[in-house]
Amino acid sequence: MNEYSSKLLENTVNELSRLPGIGKKTALRLALHILKEDMNYAVNLGKSIIKMREDIIFCEKCNNISDNKICGICSNHKRDENLICVVESTQDVIAIENTSQFNGLYHVLGGIISPVEGIGPNDLFIGGLIRRLSAEKIKEIILALPSTVEGDTTAFYIYKLLKDFDIEITTIAKGISIGEELEYADEITLGRSILNRHPFSKL
Amino acid sequence: MNEYSSKLLENTVNELSRLPGIGKKTALRLALHILKEDMNYAVNLGKSIIKMREDIIFCEKCNNISDNKICGICSNHKRDENLICVVESTQDVIAIENTSQFNGLYHVLGGIISPVEGIGPNDLFIGGLIRRLSAEKIKEIILALPSTVEGDTTAFYIYKLLKDFDIEITTIAKGISIGEELEYADEITLGRSILNRHPFSKL
Repeated sequence: MNEYSSKLLENTVNELSRLPGIGKKTALRLALHILKEDMNYAVNLGKSIIKMREDIIFCEKCNNISDNKICGICSNHKRDENLICVVESTQDVIAIENTSQFNGLYHVLGGIISPVEGIGPNDLFIGGLIRRLSAEKIKEIILALPSTVEGDTTAFYIYKLLKDFDIEITTIAKGISIGEELEYADEITLGRSILNRHPFSKL
Repeated sequence: MNEYSSKLLENTVNELSRLPGIGKKTALRLALHILKEDMNYAVNLGKSIIKMREDIIFCEKCNNISDNKICGICSNHKRDENLICVVESTQDVIAIENTSQFNGLYHVLGGIISPVEGIGPNDLFIGGLIRRLSAEKIKEIILALPSTVEGDTTAFYIYKLLKDFDIEITTIAKGISIGEELEYADEITLGRSILNRHPFSKL
Protein backbone atom coordinates (compact mmCIF):
# COMPACT_ATOMS: atom_id res chain seq x y z
CA MET A 1 0.00 0.00 0.00
CA ASN A 2 1.27 3.41 -0.99
CA GLU A 3 1.27 6.20 1.59
CA TYR A 4 -1.22 8.22 -0.48
CA SER A 5 -4.84 7.13 -0.27
CA SER A 6 -5.45 8.54 -3.75
CA LYS A 7 -3.71 7.84 -7.06
CA LEU A 8 -4.89 11.22 -8.38
CA LEU A 9 -3.17 13.00 -5.51
CA GLU A 10 -0.07 10.86 -5.95
CA ASN A 11 0.16 11.75 -9.66
CA THR A 12 -0.09 15.46 -8.99
CA VAL A 13 2.47 15.27 -6.18
CA ASN A 14 4.87 13.41 -8.50
CA GLU A 15 4.48 15.95 -11.31
CA LEU A 16 4.81 18.94 -8.98
CA SER A 17 7.90 17.52 -7.30
CA ARG A 18 9.71 17.51 -10.65
CA LEU A 19 9.78 21.32 -10.47
CA PRO A 20 13.07 22.84 -9.26
CA GLY A 21 13.21 23.39 -5.49
CA ILE A 22 9.94 21.51 -4.89
CA GLY A 23 10.38 18.34 -2.86
CA LYS A 24 7.75 15.71 -2.10
CA LYS A 25 6.56 17.42 1.08
CA THR A 26 6.17 20.83 -0.57
CA ALA A 27 4.48 19.20 -3.57
CA LEU A 28 1.99 17.55 -1.21
CA ARG A 29 1.30 20.88 0.50
CA LEU A 30 0.69 22.54 -2.87
CA ALA A 31 -1.56 19.70 -4.07
CA LEU A 32 -3.68 19.80 -0.90
CA HIS A 33 -3.94 23.58 -1.25
CA ILE A 34 -5.21 23.14 -4.81
CA LEU A 35 -7.81 20.66 -3.50
CA LYS A 36 -9.05 23.20 -0.96
CA GLU A 37 -9.39 26.06 -3.46
CA ASP A 38 -12.44 26.15 -5.70
CA MET A 39 -12.57 24.23 -8.97
CA ASN A 40 -11.86 27.31 -11.12
CA TYR A 41 -8.41 27.76 -9.68
CA ALA A 42 -7.22 24.24 -10.52
CA VAL A 43 -8.66 24.51 -14.02
CA ASN A 44 -7.10 27.93 -14.64
CA LEU A 45 -3.73 26.83 -13.25
CA GLY A 46 -3.67 23.60 -15.25
CA LYS A 47 -4.83 25.21 -18.48
CA SER A 48 -2.47 28.18 -18.21
CA ILE A 49 0.50 25.81 -17.83
CA ILE A 50 -0.48 23.72 -20.86
CA LYS A 51 -1.40 26.74 -23.02
CA MET A 52 1.82 28.56 -22.14
CA ARG A 53 3.95 25.56 -23.05
CA GLU A 54 2.06 24.89 -26.26
CA ASP A 55 1.77 28.45 -27.57
CA ILE A 56 4.84 30.39 -26.45
CA ILE A 57 7.42 31.05 -29.14
CA PHE A 58 10.67 32.98 -29.34
CA CYS A 59 10.75 36.50 -30.78
CA GLU A 60 12.40 36.38 -34.19
CA LYS A 61 14.29 39.59 -33.49
CA CYS A 62 15.47 39.38 -29.90
CA ASN A 63 14.95 35.68 -29.02
CA ASN A 64 12.97 36.59 -25.91
CA ILE A 65 9.92 34.43 -25.16
CA SER A 66 6.87 35.87 -26.84
CA ASP A 67 3.24 35.28 -27.74
CA ASN A 68 3.82 36.48 -31.32
CA LYS A 69 6.57 36.34 -33.93
CA ILE A 70 7.82 39.72 -32.74
CA CYS A 71 7.63 40.27 -28.97
CA GLY A 72 5.87 43.12 -27.19
CA ILE A 73 9.13 44.94 -26.48
CA CYS A 74 10.52 44.75 -30.04
CA SER A 75 7.18 45.87 -31.51
CA ASN A 76 6.77 48.79 -29.10
CA HIS A 77 7.59 51.93 -31.08
CA LYS A 78 8.05 54.02 -27.95
CA ARG A 79 11.26 52.18 -27.15
CA ASP A 80 14.69 53.38 -28.23
CA GLU A 81 15.67 51.30 -31.26
CA ASN A 82 19.25 52.60 -31.25
CA LEU A 83 20.04 50.80 -28.02
CA ILE A 84 20.30 47.04 -27.53
CA CYS A 85 20.95 45.32 -24.25
CA VAL A 86 22.48 41.85 -24.61
CA VAL A 87 21.43 39.48 -21.80
CA GLU A 88 21.72 35.80 -20.98
CA SER A 89 18.05 34.94 -20.40
CA THR A 90 14.43 36.03 -20.14
CA GLN A 91 14.85 36.33 -16.38
CA ASP A 92 17.45 39.05 -16.98
CA VAL A 93 15.08 40.94 -19.27
CA ILE A 94 12.44 40.89 -16.53
CA ALA A 95 15.01 41.96 -13.90
CA ILE A 96 16.10 44.94 -16.03
CA GLU A 97 12.51 45.86 -16.93
CA ASN A 98 11.72 45.96 -13.21
CA THR A 99 14.37 48.67 -12.69
CA SER A 100 12.50 51.03 -15.11
CA GLN A 101 15.93 52.38 -16.06
CA PHE A 102 16.13 51.01 -19.59
CA ASN A 103 14.04 51.97 -22.59
CA GLY A 104 15.92 50.25 -25.41
CA LEU A 105 15.53 46.81 -26.94
CA TYR A 106 16.97 43.50 -25.81
CA HIS A 107 18.85 40.62 -27.31
CA VAL A 108 18.53 37.31 -25.43
CA LEU A 109 21.46 34.95 -26.00
CA GLY A 110 19.70 31.97 -24.45
CA GLY A 111 22.73 31.07 -22.35
CA ILE A 112 26.41 31.91 -21.93
CA ILE A 113 29.58 30.25 -23.16
CA SER A 114 30.42 27.48 -20.71
CA PRO A 115 32.96 24.82 -21.71
CA VAL A 116 32.14 22.88 -18.54
CA GLU A 117 28.50 22.51 -19.57
CA GLY A 118 29.45 22.08 -23.23
CA ILE A 119 27.86 25.36 -24.35
CA GLY A 120 29.81 27.07 -27.16
CA PRO A 121 29.16 30.27 -29.12
CA ASN A 122 27.22 28.33 -31.74
CA ASP A 123 24.66 27.28 -29.14
CA LEU A 124 23.81 30.90 -28.45
CA PHE A 125 21.73 33.37 -30.49
CA ILE A 126 24.82 35.41 -31.47
CA GLY A 127 24.31 35.11 -35.24
CA GLY A 128 20.98 36.85 -34.79
CA LEU A 129 22.74 39.76 -33.12
CA ILE A 130 25.13 40.20 -36.06
CA ARG A 131 22.16 40.12 -38.45
CA ARG A 132 20.44 42.86 -36.43
CA LEU A 133 23.48 45.11 -36.85
CA SER A 134 22.83 45.41 -40.59
CA ALA A 135 19.03 45.25 -40.46
CA GLU A 136 18.50 47.81 -37.68
CA LYS A 137 19.92 51.25 -36.89
CA ILE A 138 21.80 50.35 -33.74
CA LYS A 139 24.12 52.90 -32.12
CA GLU A 140 24.99 51.22 -28.83
CA ILE A 141 25.13 47.69 -27.55
CA ILE A 142 25.17 47.18 -23.79
CA LEU A 143 26.65 43.87 -22.64
CA ALA A 144 24.66 43.02 -19.49
CA LEU A 145 26.08 39.58 -18.78
CA PRO A 146 26.78 37.92 -15.43
CA SER A 147 29.98 38.97 -13.69
CA THR A 148 31.45 35.46 -13.77
CA VAL A 149 34.20 33.76 -15.77
CA GLU A 150 31.57 32.46 -18.22
CA GLY A 151 29.87 35.85 -18.45
CA ASP A 152 33.17 37.64 -19.05
CA THR A 153 34.20 35.08 -21.68
CA THR A 154 30.92 35.53 -23.50
CA ALA A 155 31.15 39.33 -23.30
CA PHE A 156 34.71 39.29 -24.66
CA TYR A 157 33.71 36.93 -27.48
CA ILE A 158 30.88 39.23 -28.55
CA TYR A 159 33.09 42.33 -28.15
CA LYS A 160 35.62 40.84 -30.60
CA LEU A 161 32.86 40.16 -33.14
CA LEU A 162 31.41 43.65 -32.84
CA LYS A 163 34.41 45.89 -32.37
CA ASP A 164 34.92 46.62 -36.07
CA PHE A 165 31.32 47.77 -36.55
CA ASP A 166 30.55 51.44 -36.13
CA ILE A 167 28.71 51.07 -32.83
CA GLU A 168 29.49 51.88 -29.25
CA ILE A 169 29.93 48.81 -27.05
CA THR A 170 29.37 49.29 -23.32
CA THR A 171 28.99 47.05 -20.29
CA ILE A 172 26.99 47.49 -17.10
CA ALA A 173 28.90 48.98 -14.14
CA LYS A 174 30.35 46.67 -11.51
CA GLY A 175 30.83 48.08 -8.03
CA ILE A 176 29.56 47.95 -4.47
CA SER A 177 25.81 47.50 -4.00
CA ILE A 178 23.57 50.36 -2.90
CA GLY A 179 23.34 50.23 0.91
CA GLU A 180 26.49 48.12 1.22
CA GLU A 181 29.24 48.84 3.75
CA LEU A 182 32.73 49.03 2.26
CA GLU A 183 34.22 46.78 4.95
CA TYR A 184 31.92 43.91 3.96
CA ALA A 185 32.39 44.22 0.18
CA ASP A 186 34.72 41.62 -1.37
CA GLU A 187 38.16 42.90 -2.45
CA ILE A 188 37.68 42.37 -6.18
CA THR A 189 34.37 44.21 -6.31
CA LEU A 190 35.71 47.05 -4.16
CA GLY A 191 38.82 47.23 -6.33
CA ARG A 192 36.72 47.43 -9.49
CA SER A 193 34.55 50.14 -8.01
CA ILE A 194 37.68 52.24 -7.30
CA LEU A 195 39.09 51.67 -10.79
CA ASN A 196 35.71 52.55 -12.34
CA ARG A 197 35.22 55.72 -10.31
CA HIS A 198 33.43 58.57 -12.10
CA PRO A 199 32.77 62.27 -11.52
CA PHE A 200 30.75 62.77 -8.30
CA SER A 201 28.13 64.89 -10.05
CA LYS A 202 27.28 62.05 -12.47
CA LEU A 203 24.53 60.19 -10.54
CA MET B 1 4.29 47.81 -20.93
CA ASN B 2 4.34 45.00 -18.47
CA GLU B 3 7.67 43.51 -17.40
CA TYR B 4 6.77 40.18 -19.03
CA SER B 5 7.13 40.00 -22.80
CA SER B 6 4.44 37.31 -22.94
CA LYS B 7 0.86 37.30 -21.63
CA LEU B 8 0.93 33.50 -21.54
CA LEU B 9 3.94 33.56 -19.24
CA GLU B 10 2.36 36.28 -17.11
CA ASN B 11 -0.84 34.25 -16.66
CA THR B 12 1.05 31.17 -15.55
CA VAL B 13 3.22 33.19 -13.17
CA ASN B 14 0.10 34.77 -11.66
CA GLU B 15 -1.63 31.42 -11.17
CA LEU B 16 1.48 29.74 -9.73
CA SER B 17 2.13 32.63 -7.33
CA ARG B 18 -1.28 32.00 -5.71
CA LEU B 19 0.14 28.76 -4.28
CA PRO B 20 1.29 28.94 -0.65
CA GLY B 21 4.95 29.87 -0.23
CA ILE B 22 5.38 30.65 -3.95
CA GLY B 23 6.16 34.31 -4.65
CA LYS B 24 6.41 36.02 -8.03
CA LYS B 25 10.11 35.27 -8.45
CA THR B 26 9.75 31.57 -7.63
CA ALA B 27 6.67 31.36 -9.85
CA LEU B 28 8.69 32.83 -12.73
CA ARG B 29 11.48 30.32 -12.14
CA LEU B 30 8.97 27.45 -12.17
CA ALA B 31 7.25 28.75 -15.31
CA LEU B 32 10.55 29.11 -17.18
CA HIS B 33 11.51 25.60 -16.07
CA ILE B 34 8.23 24.28 -17.49
CA LEU B 35 9.02 26.05 -20.77
CA LYS B 36 12.40 24.35 -20.95
CA GLU B 37 11.04 20.85 -20.30
CA ASP B 38 9.43 18.96 -23.16
CA MET B 39 5.78 19.40 -24.03
CA ASN B 40 4.68 16.18 -22.31
CA TYR B 41 5.66 17.45 -18.90
CA ALA B 42 3.54 20.60 -19.08
CA VAL B 43 0.57 18.62 -20.41
CA ASN B 44 0.90 15.93 -17.72
CA LEU B 45 1.31 18.50 -14.95
CA GLY B 46 -1.62 20.61 -16.11
CA LYS B 47 -3.93 17.67 -16.67
CA SER B 48 -3.04 15.95 -13.39
CA ILE B 49 -3.91 19.12 -11.48
CA ILE B 50 -7.28 19.53 -13.19
CA LYS B 51 -8.16 15.82 -13.01
CA MET B 52 -7.22 15.62 -9.33
CA ARG B 53 -9.37 18.61 -8.44
CA GLU B 54 -12.31 17.40 -10.51
CA ASP B 55 -12.32 13.73 -9.52
CA ILE B 56 -11.05 13.45 -5.94
CA ILE B 57 -13.74 12.74 -3.35
CA PHE B 58 -13.77 12.06 0.38
CA CYS B 59 -13.95 8.52 1.71
CA GLU B 60 -17.44 7.94 3.14
CA LYS B 61 -16.02 6.01 6.07
CA CYS B 62 -12.90 7.89 7.17
CA ASN B 63 -13.22 11.26 5.33
CA ASN B 64 -9.72 10.93 3.89
CA ILE B 65 -9.28 12.05 0.28
CA SER B 66 -9.92 9.18 -2.05
CA ASP B 67 -10.44 8.19 -5.68
CA ASN B 68 -13.44 6.02 -4.78
CA LYS B 69 -16.34 6.11 -2.31
CA ILE B 70 -14.30 4.00 0.11
CA CYS B 71 -10.58 4.83 0.21
CA GLY B 72 -7.72 2.38 -0.34
CA ILE B 73 -6.94 2.15 3.36
CA CYS B 74 -10.52 1.50 4.51
CA SER B 75 -11.04 -1.12 1.79
CA ASN B 76 -7.77 -2.93 2.54
CA HIS B 77 -8.71 -6.10 4.41
CA LYS B 78 -5.16 -6.63 5.66
CA ARG B 79 -5.50 -3.67 8.00
CA ASP B 80 -6.63 -3.98 11.61
CA GLU B 81 -10.29 -2.92 11.70
CA ASN B 82 -10.36 -2.85 15.51
CA LEU B 83 -8.07 0.16 15.64
CA ILE B 84 -8.90 3.68 14.49
CA CYS B 85 -6.48 6.59 14.54
CA VAL B 86 -8.19 10.00 14.68
CA VAL B 87 -6.18 12.73 12.90
CA GLU B 88 -6.69 16.32 11.82
CA SER B 89 -5.88 16.05 8.12
CA THR B 90 -4.73 13.98 5.15
CA GLN B 91 -1.17 15.20 5.72
CA ASP B 92 -1.23 13.50 9.13
CA VAL B 93 -2.41 10.22 7.56
CA ILE B 94 0.54 10.38 5.15
CA ALA B 95 2.95 11.24 7.98
CA ILE B 96 1.77 8.25 10.04
CA GLU B 97 1.76 5.91 7.01
CA ASN B 98 5.37 6.91 6.38
CA THR B 99 6.34 5.63 9.85
CA SER B 100 5.16 2.07 8.93
CA GLN B 101 4.19 1.70 12.61
CA PHE B 102 0.44 1.69 12.23
CA ASN B 103 -1.74 -0.93 10.59
CA GLY B 104 -5.21 0.19 11.65
CA LEU B 105 -7.71 2.50 10.00
CA TYR B 106 -7.95 6.28 10.15
CA HIS B 107 -10.58 8.88 10.80
CA VAL B 108 -9.87 12.32 9.33
CA LEU B 109 -11.61 15.16 11.18
CA GLY B 110 -10.88 17.72 8.47
CA GLY B 111 -9.64 20.30 10.99
CA ILE B 112 -9.54 20.94 14.74
CA ILE B 113 -11.69 23.01 17.05
CA SER B 114 -10.44 26.60 16.86
CA PRO B 115 -12.64 29.40 18.21
CA VAL B 116 -10.19 31.96 16.79
CA GLU B 117 -10.73 30.67 13.26
CA GLY B 118 -14.43 30.05 13.91
CA ILE B 119 -14.15 26.26 13.63
CA GLY B 120 -16.49 24.42 16.02
CA PRO B 121 -17.17 20.70 16.58
CA ASN B 122 -19.98 20.80 13.99
CA ASP B 123 -17.53 21.79 11.26
CA LEU B 124 -15.57 18.59 11.82
CA PHE B 125 -16.34 15.01 10.78
CA ILE B 126 -17.05 13.92 14.36
CA GLY B 127 -20.58 12.65 13.72
CA GLY B 128 -19.08 10.20 11.27
CA LEU B 129 -16.83 8.82 14.01
CA ILE B 130 -19.79 8.19 16.33
CA ARG B 131 -21.62 6.38 13.52
CA ARG B 132 -18.58 4.18 12.95
CA LEU B 133 -18.70 3.07 16.60
CA SER B 134 -21.99 1.23 16.04
CA ALA B 135 -21.35 0.15 12.45
CA GLU B 136 -17.84 -1.27 12.95
CA LYS B 137 -16.18 -3.50 15.53
CA ILE B 138 -13.81 -0.94 17.00
CA LYS B 139 -11.81 -1.81 20.12
CA GLU B 140 -9.43 1.14 20.39
CA ILE B 141 -9.41 4.74 19.23
CA ILE B 142 -6.07 6.55 19.15
CA LEU B 143 -6.30 10.34 19.33
CA ALA B 144 -3.35 11.56 17.22
CA LEU B 145 -4.03 15.29 17.31
CA PRO B 146 -1.54 18.17 17.42
CA SER B 147 -0.04 18.95 20.81
CA THR B 148 -1.50 22.48 20.87
CA VAL B 149 -4.33 24.17 22.76
CA GLU B 150 -6.65 23.53 19.80
CA GLY B 151 -5.50 19.93 19.47
CA ASP B 152 -5.97 19.25 23.18
CA THR B 153 -9.41 20.89 23.15
CA THR B 154 -10.48 18.73 20.23
CA ALA B 155 -9.06 15.58 21.84
CA PHE B 156 -10.89 16.31 25.11
CA TYR B 157 -14.15 17.02 23.28
CA ILE B 158 -13.95 13.69 21.45
CA TYR B 159 -12.91 11.87 24.65
CA LYS B 160 -16.05 13.13 26.42
CA LEU B 161 -18.23 11.88 23.58
CA LEU B 162 -16.60 8.45 23.50
CA LYS B 163 -15.85 7.68 27.12
CA ASP B 164 -19.15 5.87 27.81
CA PHE B 165 -18.72 3.49 24.88
CA ASP B 166 -17.01 0.18 25.51
CA ILE B 167 -13.76 1.08 23.72
CA GLU B 168 -10.27 1.93 24.78
CA ILE B 169 -9.28 5.56 24.11
CA THR B 170 -5.58 6.30 23.84
CA THR B 171 -3.43 9.20 22.71
CA ILE B 172 0.00 9.28 21.09
CA ALA B 173 2.96 9.69 23.46
CA LYS B 174 4.45 13.13 24.03
CA GLY B 175 8.09 13.34 25.05
CA ILE B 176 11.54 14.27 23.87
CA SER B 177 12.37 13.58 20.23
CA ILE B 178 14.66 10.71 19.22
CA GLY B 179 18.20 12.10 19.01
CA GLU B 180 17.35 15.14 21.15
CA GLU B 181 19.58 16.34 23.98
CA LEU B 182 17.76 16.83 27.29
CA GLU B 183 19.30 20.27 27.87
CA TYR B 184 17.74 21.60 24.65
CA ALA B 185 14.26 20.15 25.20
CA ASP B 186 11.63 22.65 26.38
CA GLU B 187 10.55 22.31 30.05
CA ILE B 188 6.96 21.28 29.35
CA THR B 189 7.92 18.50 26.95
CA LEU B 190 10.68 17.27 29.27
CA GLY B 191 8.25 17.40 32.22
CA ARG B 192 5.67 15.38 30.30
CA SER B 193 8.24 12.81 29.29
CA ILE B 194 9.16 12.30 32.97
CA LEU B 195 5.50 12.04 34.04
CA ASN B 196 4.82 9.55 31.22
CA ARG B 197 7.83 7.35 31.95
CA HIS B 198 7.35 3.63 31.33
CA PRO B 199 9.23 0.39 32.10
CA PHE B 200 12.66 0.42 30.43
CA SER B 201 12.13 -2.96 28.78
CA LYS B 202 9.04 -1.66 26.93
CA LEU B 203 10.65 -0.31 23.73
